[in-house]
Amino acid sequence: MYKVNENYLKLPGSYLFSTIAKKVAAFAEANPDKKIIRLGIGDVTQPLTPPIIAALHSAVDEMASAETFRGYAPDLGYAFLRETIAREDFAARGCEIYADEIFVSDGAKSDSGNIQELFDGSCRIAVCDPVYPVYVDSNVMAGRTGTYDAATGYWSDVIYMPCTEANGFVAELPKERPDIIYLCFPNNPTGAAIRRDELQRWVDYANENGCVIIYDAAYEAYISEENVPHSVYECEGARSCAIEIRSFSKNAGFTGVRLGYTVVPKDLKCGNASLHDMWARRHGTKYNGAPYIMQKAGEACYTEEGRKSIRGLVEFYMKNARTIYDGLKDMGYTVYGGVNSPYIWLKTPDGMTSWEFFDYLLERANVVGTPGSGFGPNGEGFFRLTAFGSYENSLAALERIRSL
Amino acid sequence: MYKVNENYLKLPGSYLFSTIAKKVAAFAEANPDKKIIRLGIGDVTQPLTPPIIAALHSAVDEMASAETFRGYAPDLGYAFLRETIAREDFAARGCEIYADEIFVSDGAKSDSGNIQELFDGSCRIAVCDPVYPVYVDSNVMAGRTGTYDAATGYWSDVIYMPCTEANGFVAELPKERPDIIYLCFPNNPTGAAIRRDELQRWVDYANENGCVIIYDAAYEAYISEENVPHSVYECEGARSCAIEIRSFSKNAGFTGVRLGYTVVPKDLKCGNASLHDMWARRHGTKYNGAPYIMQKAGEACYTEEGRKSIRGLVEFYMKNARTIYDGLKDMGYTVYGGVNSPYIWLKTPDGMTSWEFFDYLLERANVVGTPGSGFGPNGEGFFRLTAFGSYENSLAALERIRSL
Repeated sequence: MYKVNENYLKLPGSYLFSTIAKKVAAFAEANPDKKIIRLGIGDVTQPLTPPIIAALHSAVDEMASAETFRGYAPDLGYAFLRETIAREDFAARGCEIYADEIFVSDGAKSDSGNIQELFDGSCRIAVCDPVYPVYVDSNVMAGRTGTYDAATGYWSDVIYMPCTEANGFVAELPKERPDIIYLCFPNNPTGAAIRRDELQRWVDYANENGCVIIYDAAYEAYISEENVPHSVYECEGARSCAIEIRSFSKNAGFTGVRLGYTVVPKDLKCGNASLHDMWARRHGTKYNGAPYIMQKAGEACYTEEGRKSIRGLVEFYMKNARTIYDGLKDMGYTVYGGVNSPYIWLKTPDGMTSWEFFDYLLERANVVGTPGSGFGPNGEGFFRLTAFGSYENSLAALERIRSL
Repeated sequence: MYKVNENYLKLPGSYLFSTIAKKVAAFAEANPDKKIIRLGIGDVTQPLTPPIIAALHSAVDEMASAETFRGYAPDLGYAFLRETIAREDFAARGCEIYADEIFVSDGAKSDSGNIQELFDGSCRIAVCDPVYPVYVDSNVMAGRTGTYDAATGYWSDVIYMPCTEANGFVAELPKERPDIIYLCFPNNPTGAAIRRDELQRWVDYANENGCVIIYDAAYEAYISEENVPHSVYECEGARSCAIEIRSFSKNAGFTGVRLGYTVVPKDLKCGNASLHDMWARRHGTKYNGAPYIMQKAGEACYTEEGRKSIRGLVEFYMKNARTIYDGLKDMGYTVYGGVNSPYIWLKTPDGMTSWEFFDYLLERANVVGTPGSGFGPNGEGFFRLTAFGSYENSLAALERIRSL
């Protein structure tokens, strides 16, 4: 008999957001009259903006005639998009990143999940605690995490870096040396940002200790403060130690469009092995390029009109973030995030656990959030609300919470 | 220092079609006046049909207003598409496959490359020789294939099943027991089809020997003969031993749209481990759903109008296939495929190797094909031409070859 990948069987329960979706669906079915407000999963709600819609229609039209039809895209992305990204997201910020170091994909989640394949099974990963579950789960599936302790919620071979109120939710450098360090700033789920000088210390640490940083910058569009870096490549030396993952989901609202990219600089080498070439080989072998239609939509995000429209989306959600942040604070909640991030990270009241508060909010206020403990043991006692709803729903959710 | 996945470094050269693309690009640059006809990579050239274009435009419009905007798709695909597929591709052919056994994805290549993750590192794979390179390369990357012998072109731990003129390019059952058997019918690259009774023998073998069949049916739309199965689930017992991979690329011309699906029946179990649940977990963790816009285009393939338009595409390419097949035969070439498949598999003339014939055709006729040896040692001495060009180009390529 064939054998399955037993690492899959070690995963406790299902993917966090699948669990929440099932709970909410069950509640909705049992209470068809209740109007549920969803501030749980980080999914946007505003429509695509007119310049993006125009680009999509125009690309669809190109697919309708033989002269302009596009079949397989180049594995790594169309040059028009890769060059635009290199210029606008990197050169414009003084970062040395070239078009052929940019790998266009169907999104940051796929890339976050697949990137670990480039590394040996013996590599030890370090993650923030709490953390976006994909980093850990994808390494569990690859057998890098050891055994799971259901009592503590920790994997034996993962290096956890606590993000707590005490350190402002920015982890300290690990005491044990990891091989791979996952960092996400502005952070999901805590909404915390990192200063440039703090990030530089991580880059220096990685270079000194032979680590790779996988830097998830999916939320960079929400940065509002000056000394917060938009890219890890704003730090000196990052080209030799850091991979960066970017998304069009949270800035341009592409959660249902599926477009992202990953930067693997050519300086990232382990002996003779080039991570850049390995990632290119992975794309060539197990992926077939992002759709032309979606890459044209991505390009449209960088025109003057496109930029302006996207800024409007980000401002829209950030107004929600401020509203929720201020409202909860006003009610006496302890609240974090929301300044450089669309996420509000709040302390659960009255010593409730995260899941108790989830149920309480769902049942009593019909508001869906995400239990902090779903992101890791140090998330226990916290709860994530997103600013991705409508303004009306953000206000309504606040009112419902106020009246509890 | 971190360690990389050394299995990647074992891969000889680059992905076959990337190599060809580079060779052709170099030739084109050196010979800007030469009009190259590309019958190499299996990429379609006809535009998307009007019903598909209409569905794309309409879905784009839905993304433009908050009421109809769609964010993250369900991990496994929208119910509207999964239900349509279950009804039209399976129930209509008498196959017992349910909507929740269908996993919508961004294409058959991704699924072919990722599916091996579900299995243990010790599993032995069996592949046809010649073979679509993704099956082997993705297993190389996962460390299942042993060492590569450059002299023979074989991996030490792969079970090769020769597909030759003698067996009509339909492999015989392997002498050694594999864990995972990759089958692709109608076959890429040889264009061979398998009869239902022959496929039933494979299903029986897999059930008796505890193997999983990964059945790639990407070309099923090209089947023109009665006794050739469109799905492995036309065979009795396939639900307990077979995974099927399907594509919208070759029937509806979605190579640049990116949509496919994989069927993992719930009966596919290894002890308590359900491959269905494992694949669902992979989708949930490392993938974020196919875009709504593309799934609506997929649904449009099944309307009466959509079906009719797609049939037109397939007939268009099959006319090319017949033309190339008959033309080459007429010139004295030994030719296979082309009846249930858009691929023509021809013997290279005058004892040329596959790559010699590739260069000869590129330089002398400016026609691009695919060297058979790129698909495996038993492909040596053969060459693949695709019917995916225009009719004019198919004719022109023939004329050029005739005048050599």
